[in-house]
Amino acid sequence: MPGLAEMKGRKYMSEIIATYLIHDAKHNPEKKAEEIALGLTVGSWTHLPVLEKNQLRKHKGRVVSVEVLLTAEGSKETAAIIKIAYPTANFSPDLPAILTTVFGKLSLDGKIKLIDLQFSNEIKSFFPGPRFGIEGLREKLNVRSRPLLMSIFKGVLGKDMNFLTSQLREQAHGGIDIVKDDEILFENELTPFEERITEGKKVLGQVFEETGHRTLYAVNLTGRTFDLKAKARKAASLGADLLLFNVFAYGLDVLQELREDDGIGLPIMAHPAVSGALSASSIYGISYSLLLGKLLRYAGADLSLFPSPYGSVALEKEQAISIGQSLTSEDFCKKTFPVPSAGIHPGLVPLLYHDFGTDSVINAGGGVHGHPDGAKGGGLAFRQAIDLTLNGNSLSESLSDYPELKKAIDLWGHTEVKAKNA
Amino acid sequence: MPGLAEMKGRKYMSEIIATYLIHDAKHNPEKKAEEIALGLTVGSWTHLPVLEKNQLRKHKGRVVSVEVLLTAEGSKETAAIIKIAYPTANFSPDLPAILTTVFGKLSLDGKIKLIDLQFSNEIKSFFPGPRFGIEGLREKLNVRSRPLLMSIFKGVLGKDMNFLTSQLREQAHGGIDIVKDDEILFENELTPFEERITEGKKVLGQVFEETGHRTLYAVNLTGRTFDLKAKARKAASLGADLLLFNVFAYGLDVLQELREDDGIGLPIMAHPAVSGALSASSIYGISYSLLLGKLLRYAGADLSLFPSPYGSVALEKEQAISIGQSLTSEDFCKKTFPVPSAGIHPGLVPLLYHDFGTDSVINAGGGVHGHPDGAKGGGLAFRQAIDLTLNGNSLSESLSDYPELKKAIDLWGHTEVKAKNA
Repeated sequence: MPGLAEMKGRKYMSEIIATYLIHDAKHNPEKKAEEIALGLTVGSWTHLPVLEKNQLRKHKGRVVSVEVLLTAEGSKETAAIIKIAYPTANFSPDLPAILTTVFGKLSLDGKIKLIDLQFSNEIKSFFPGPRFGIEGLREKLNVRSRPLLMSIFKGVLGKDMNFLTSQLREQAHGGIDIVKDDEILFENELTPFEERITEGKKVLGQVFEETGHRTLYAVNLTGRTFDLKAKARKAASLGADLLLFNVFAYGLDVLQELREDDGIGLPIMAHPAVSGALSASSIYGISYSLLLGKLLRYAGADLSLFPSPYGSVALEKEQAISIGQSLTSEDFCKKTFPVPSAGIHPGLVPLLYHDFGTDSVINAGGGVHGHPDGAKGGGLAFRQAIDLTLNGNSLSESLSDYPELKKAIDLWGHTEVKAKNA
Repeated sequence: MPGLAEMKGRKYMSEIIATYLIHDAKHNPEKKAEEIALGLTVGSWTHLPVLEKNQLRKHKGRVVSVEVLLTAEGSKETAAIIKIAYPTANFSPDLPAILTTVFGKLSLDGKIKLIDLQFSNEIKSFFPGPRFGIEGLREKLNVRSRPLLMSIFKGVLGKDMNFLTSQLREQAHGGIDIVKDDEILFENELTPFEERITEGKKVLGQVFEETGHRTLYAVNLTGRTFDLKAKARKAASLGADLLLFNVFAYGLDVLQELREDDGIGLPIMAHPAVSGALSASSIYGISYSLLLGKLLRYAGADLSLFPSPYGSVALEKEQAISIGQSLTSEDFCKKTFPVPSAGIHPGLVPLLYHDFGTDSVINAGGGVHGHPDGAKGGGLAFRQAIDLTLNGNSLSESLSDYPELKKAIDLWGHTEVKAKNA
């Protein structure tokens, strides 16, 4: 009974199941799926001798499902969602091997997009997830039950340390929880990496003494790949709070290496720079929810920035929300903070809260620095909007009590959110 | 005369010029270009005080050109090629910093594709180019004036060392110059990395003694990122010939680090696995000629595999040829061997030779192993096709003298090439 034996064998096999969207000009997605399952594993099957079949069974990919999507009649292509299972016996348990297996050659093979990867528990055990995650960061900040507030340095190229520290001070005075480097700030003479950490620390220490508010600073970890660990350890020894990291300019496995290094031990904020090159097309590439969601989380990012669905650099709402869900759904590891970014001003807080919930980070650049009262006013306006929203109030109520928020709303307006059951 | 001063300043400034294809729904590519040039460098300009302008001038991006492409009347978008110059003062001279600068946030900003990057001589000086390049590999093989011939192991998952070495031997007996690992062969118990190198070396040494023909073996360098250097050095110490590397599953800078390590010192063959996720869309991502051409070459690949324009996994001919040109045009560094791959059989040799010239590698999997006389027959058929083509003969001539080539052509056919001036 080879059929039964095969099923029994399967039962104990660990797999990764990849979900793809294909547009098949040959209108035969079942055949395409079968070609992938064999072509990317054992090569061929039907005509193999029994002996070889037995030898190769545990390496053979299999088609899990083929779901044809509705397309217009006479359409040139058949769109379908196909799922292929790859035995983990075929690859080492690291992301470069997994990506090469499930989307190596295949990424070059016509209209195909990698939508999701389901890891077996066995393969999950090789991934660390975030070192701190949402709970760990909340603990560091002592902020338990509201979305965090983050802002970004603005216009820092060519500026000196005084400019940076005074901008940092102002943002901290606005009640911002985390201030991040501009991702395009690299090693430079005016504001070197180590000095940014030590000077930033001083300023934020002063603000904490003055106000009791703790702000963390995310310093941009840049440079050559094999220097990153030593640089990050140095950052940790200087007392850095967080690392900002342009993971897609390096590689997901580099992020994981940084996460796993106990000599670093810092929270890592993943920036989505360059990720649009992989994810922006609806037909090719890798889905945002997999790339900026699940994979960043498994590899160990504590925060994941992604385009909000509201600004000029925007994702579709469904996509942005699916990233947030990937980062915070129940899984084997800690949760990653979703940071929907770009185009955020205080008037959007009710919408952000509605769409991304308490466990998210509200992040703004222009929406903080562009406030009529500067970054401090911008920060305060956001904090007021967060308080009002969490208390179930509309932003249009009692604005006279919140002068900074009033100025922000006069400038940028605000968006009401309809209650779900209203 | 601030205008003149500005021009003088420019004269000595080092820049990277990025070329983008945009599809602009606002029909104002000039404005979009200006927004990019400022937004990705100094942020704003017009309203800055003179003092700040003087301070920031050397960091300011500039629009080099905007060329509107012809689109159908009433088109919803204006397509344009825009060129933006980024001062090298803005970033450290490494690919992660460069990619983050020129296509970081921008990759997420609507319909935009990075087509090309022109490096100034100053910035080129930070890149190594190939260690061996075309000439160095020719020297290793002692093959001076014909395209090289390469083939790929077939169906190796779940197979043992005997299977691998006998396949290697047969390919070598077919006159193949380079045999490469399957890119989906990772660390495994049956055929471990180090044993593949030492056993492969033995077999190829035997074939050389028997036949005088030298075949090189490219072993797949896989595993966690920060283990790669030690693993590659070990490979070198065991006498490995070449490294195969899935660079896009890791990162371009990782390739460069491997190239620059004198303790490794091996030729590197870059595999295009996963690159389709970055390059397959015509609207988003990074062009194949930049990714698989210029950047791989600058970072140090000695060979670059890419989809041929003939097979089932096919690039458009223009794209494939532009990759080949990027790899072999005159530049500051050595040349990289173009390896157009997939769907290649002996009958395509005249076409390959016509399209990619002498300085290319003819690479086949099924076209070698699927030959009626096995991989040896397949290799011989290719070598016969190469000889005939280089001597200016058609493949349909005197086939009775070339029994292996005759069988290949009977099976797969052949394509005649019209002489350019005929």
